Amino acid sequence: MTTVKRDTYTPETLLSVAVQVFNERGYDGTSMEHLSKAAGISKSSIYHHVTGKEELLRRAVSRALDGLFAVLEEPGAVRGRAVERVEYVTRRTVEVLVSELPYVTLLLRVRGNTRTERWALERRREFDHQVADLLKAAAADGDLRADVDIRLATRLLFGMVNSLVEWYRPHPGTGSEQLADAVVHMAFDGLRTTR
Amino acid sequence: MTTVKRDTYTPETLLSVAVQVFNERGYDGTSMEHLSKAAGISKSSIYHHVTGKEELLRRAVSRALDGLFAVLEEPGAVRGRAVERVEYVTRRTVEVLVSELPYVTLLLRVRGNTRTERWALERRREFDHQVADLLKAAAADGDLRADVDIRLATRLLFGMVNSLVEWYRPHPGTGSEQLADAVVHMAFDGLRTTR
Repeated sequence: MTTVKRDTYTPETLLSVAVQVFNERGYDGTSMEHLSKAAGISKSSIYHHVTGKEELLRRAVSRALDGLFAVLEEPGAVRGRAVERVEYVTRRTVEVLVSELPYVTLLLRVRGNTRTERWALERRREFDHQVADLLKAAAADGDLRADVDIRLATRLLFGMVNSLVEWYRPHPGTGSEQLADAVVHMAFDGLRTTR
Repeated sequence: MTTVKRDTYTPETLLSVAVQVFNERGYDGTSMEHLSKAAGISKSSIYHHVTGKEELLRRAVSRALDGLFAVLEEPGAVRGRAVERVEYVTRRTVEVLVSELPYVTLLLRVRGNTRTERWALERRREFDHQVADLLKAAAADGDLRADVDIRLATRLLFGMVNSLVEWYRPHPGTGSEQLADAVVHMAFDGLRTTR
């Protein structure tokens, strides 16, 4: 009965199941037994694909990190005024969060108890620093209000964007473009029409 | 050696220790044994004060919820244009988050596994709804930009504000007033000076 499943099992489907289990139970709370049950394949079949759960974690957070870092290489992130570039990066970050939701969720929940987790945290900080540098450049250009501390603004921007993984669920009528528009409008232009 | 501690123990100090342990280990992961060790008093001494860890959780999240709901009764929250009221509530919410940081942190991490947790979640949703209603009223007044969905804006605003519990640590030079200013400026006026 399970032969079909086993035959069609690929590293990608295993990864997708593992990420779901990690997000539900927490990485620390997940055993190979849990993964084996959720995937419907034996532990030894899992070991055929990966050395253990830490490798699955590394592959999963790599997928999220690769998506995020790729944004920083896109033309919109490297050309033009800093304020336009940081708006572009914010918009695309939201889109990556939505398209890679379970992977980014896992990345944002990583605590730092294992080598892989510490590596993921460091890469995440590196991404945050690059965005912070863009915000600093935009402030230096005079394109950001001077009465908000840039470090605070960076934290608040990431707080807003990263909160998406906690509450955003894809549904018809709210595409990632509308979501990205809302984030960019709110963060850069504000909600208010009058003063 | 522990007599002095025991004699000076009050329900408030026990609550403060319990909240710290809940935030570190998670509520589910905390036993009476952990609380007893952290407080430096016996389990029976704890039972002298409370019926168990769920009562400590209820007292802790009540403190956070009481602080948040009190904001909604303040003059700045009930008088004037809706947009001014929602700005006021946002500012004061940040201040309550900072002054009651461990209690609000615990509140925001509540999952809903016990009756007390489900009650806390429901009260939190009630608070969120009241703020959402203020935002709707401000939008109806034409004081909020029409191109951002109000439900999305509410989620993003809470995402930004609630993220504070994850990264804000009190330190000299960044008071809660500066923080509240930054949140209000960013959410309502935007970071950008030019278009």
